[in-house]
Amino acid sequence: MQTPLSPITNVVELLDTGNDDAVAAMFAEAHPADIADALERLTPEKRPAAWLHIPKDAKGEVLSELNEGVFRNLAEELDNRDLVNAIKVLDTDDIADLIPDLPESLLADVLFAVDTETRANLGEVLSYPEDSAGGLMDLDFITVRDNISLDVVLHYLRLKTELPEHTDTVYLVNRANQLTGILPLDRIITQRGGDQARGHMVESPVIFQILDDEEQVAKAFTDYDLISAPVVDENQKLVGRITIDDVVDVIREQAEHDIMAAAGLKEEEDIFAPVTKTTGDRTIWLAVNLLTALLGSWVIGQFEGSIQRLVALAVLMPIVASMGGNAGTQTLTVVIRGMSLGTISRGNMLNVLKKESMVGVLNGLIWAAAISIIAGLWYQDIILGLVIAAAMIANLVMGAIAGVCIPIFLERMNIDPALAGGVALTTVTDVVGYFSVLGLATLILL
Amino acid sequence: MQTPLSPITNVVELLDTGNDDAVAAMFAEAHPADIADALERLTPEKRPAAWLHIPKDAKGEVLSELNEGVFRNLAEELDNRDLVNAIKVLDTDDIADLIPDLPESLLADVLFAVDTETRANLGEVLSYPEDSAGGLMDLDFITVRDNISLDVVLHYLRLKTELPEHTDTVYLVNRANQLTGILPLDRIITQRGGDQARGHMVESPVIFQILDDEEQVAKAFTDYDLISAPVVDENQKLVGRITIDDVVDVIREQAEHDIMAAAGLKEEEDIFAPVTKTTGDRTIWLAVNLLTALLGSWVIGQFEGSIQRLVALAVLMPIVASMGGNAGTQTLTVVIRGMSLGTISRGNMLNVLKKESMVGVLNGLIWAAAISIIAGLWYQDIILGLVIAAAMIANLVMGAIAGVCIPIFLERMNIDPALAGGVALTTVTDVVGYFSVLGLATLILL
Repeated sequence: MQTPLSPITNVVELLDTGNDDAVAAMFAEAHPADIADALERLTPEKRPAAWLHIPKDAKGEVLSELNEGVFRNLAEELDNRDLVNAIKVLDTDDIADLIPDLPESLLADVLFAVDTETRANLGEVLSYPEDSAGGLMDLDFITVRDNISLDVVLHYLRLKTELPEHTDTVYLVNRANQLTGILPLDRIITQRGGDQARGHMVESPVIFQILDDEEQVAKAFTDYDLISAPVVDENQKLVGRITIDDVVDVIREQAEHDIMAAAGLKEEEDIFAPVTKTTGDRTIWLAVNLLTALLGSWVIGQFEGSIQRLVALAVLMPIVASMGGNAGTQTLTVVIRGMSLGTISRGNMLNVLKKESMVGVLNGLIWAAAISIIAGLWYQDIILGLVIAAAMIANLVMGAIAGVCIPIFLERMNIDPALAGGVALTTVTDVVGYFSVLGLATLILL
Repeated sequence: MQTPLSPITNVVELLDTGNDDAVAAMFAEAHPADIADALERLTPEKRPAAWLHIPKDAKGEVLSELNEGVFRNLAEELDNRDLVNAIKVLDTDDIADLIPDLPESLLADVLFAVDTETRANLGEVLSYPEDSAGGLMDLDFITVRDNISLDVVLHYLRLKTELPEHTDTVYLVNRANQLTGILPLDRIITQRGGDQARGHMVESPVIFQILDDEEQVAKAFTDYDLISAPVVDENQKLVGRITIDDVVDVIREQAEHDIMAAAGLKEEEDIFAPVTKTTGDRTIWLAVNLLTALLGSWVIGQFEGSIQRLVALAVLMPIVASMGGNAGTQTLTVVIRGMSLGTISRGNMLNVLKKESMVGVLNGLIWAAAISIIAGLWYQDIILGLVIAAAMIANLVMGAIAGVCIPIFLERMNIDPALAGGVALTTVTDVVGYFSVLGLATLILL
């Protein structure tokens, strides 16, 4: 790849050896996104020093490219005036994105520093939920009246020295500023200039309402291969435009969220945040896990007598619990992904449950056979092998059922399945795994 | 949202009640991506019936929108001639994407059915790795000579009735077809027609080499907000163009891969694949898990005597193993994400290890205190509480260290950390957890 600008390499070493000029020279040639990457790779104490070497006119864009956690940490360290100057020159939608992460003391300064028009626009954008089409849109787009010819449109565009970024279409509006159509740029170029603009509009345009959810927006952009799309209010008035670059960020953040949430982490985690902060952030997750682990231990505790008489149970019970957890997690992952991609819905949920239960039964039979042979040989006890085998079948079927039902239940309760699904599932499979091994053994063997 | 075309709802019910005309009418009005979604929601035995109602000219695009697993299952069921007719009209890059998933018997038919030019192009695209810039590019783009004026470019474009999809730039080439610059469409419109085209080229263009990795391509598109970018060969000759819609698919697939791999699943899993196929696909993962679980059990087995004398150990040891696994998974997730986003690299790896170990120590102290009180009260035994506490600290520190080192090691061994990291980590924390509880107890208490 030939990058637009020189890559950034050894910032740490250059800063450590006091070679500040080299850092400044490198930053002067670099893309803001690459400078932001470099800052994220530094430990927090080194970031303010690196910040000083970023060219003035790149600082704002660097801030808007930073991971949220890193931005918050950095914003606390930097000089307020420096920050405000960097932020105030950004586009309205970029400023709006930074505002939720600004220290309170700075918010008023930023709003005071921007010009009147930007302040009014910010007020509008910030009034929409961050995760809606309204929160995602920018306000910079081109509209033309819908009763003119392509030549007039072209002439109008020629009067501008440049078009807003990612302009692939212009919007046709009527006198009331209501959106009446979308005109692709390439048709302005390729079609006969005398033609009416409205004769060359996109045939089935995708138009978003202000309150459309950003996940819905992302899916539409992906499915229909969009570069940009208009946003209208309830009166069909054109209020903004969503562009693919912001949608790509949404897609990446959603993916990061799903991956990080499964381990109880936030997607904007700063890898080099202070130890105490990181420990604090992770405490709740471990506390929840301790409670669920205690539940499993309580079940074991009910069978202390059985374990004392047949210590093999203590050796074998974690295998059953673990296999149930793993098989169940496979079902859970498939179901959560299916729900989030829309493949699984109310209409076919029963089919999923039926299928996954059958997989659970089949897996149960396979691994019951395996474990009964292993346990039977290990302890020279066929009945013990059969008891563990029965527990294995029970737990794998339970894992499959829980893997389907838990995300459905969590979604109904408005709890994020990506966050809580795994813990809930392994709690079920641990409890059922221990209980079935110890309970069956107590009934049959002791 | 106003979708381009009517949404698809109750296909299952309509098919079940024999209302085939309604299905055909719905499909006639729908976007191919929505039809593909509908097929994915059907059970496999219903898909061929639904396929018959898809309009002829939409069939190809529906196929290229399908999840790979669903496509493979469907391709086996359908009439070969029908499939070939649907595929042969697609763009070269779309055909190239489908080819790896085609049944062997069909491959020759498809290559025979396409026209000579497409066949030659297919040969070229298929000669590059699927996950490279060459595998991702399409061959449909606009080039102009680099010594002409903007007016001449505009005139040339006017001669075409339409431009290739997502054309935001035209490429300037010299006599040898080497790329010399990129000219944005909007500058052709807004700048003075008499100007030389090369005076208005993009200042620092991103240009890909054929063998650039698709992850690198995705990162560049995200970082530099690209809509399209050219691909050149080693002689700087222009060979193709990558567009954002294909990059979005790459980003989504990578995210799906990372999420699914963590549970030992493939990203193209068909939710409604036959039970035996699904069970087979998941067997290896469960077999690996059984082996690792047996390793944990073997450790426990070494201390059977200790457990028999102090059965509380069997009750408490899963808590220590589980807490180590959860804390370690948090570290592991952060490190894998950091490595895949480029935030963590050789240069700052030691900082990460140092920090995560400190977090492990701090977490260890917190949860050691908690568990010593719980265990002490539960069994009225202070020394037992202290033994479990010491084991907890050891395992949480071990979890943190393993969370950093395992992904580094796996990456060096060319094993996907997203796939194997979790299993490897919990094996370590299970073994260390059991061993530290039982070993310390045997030394100190018994």
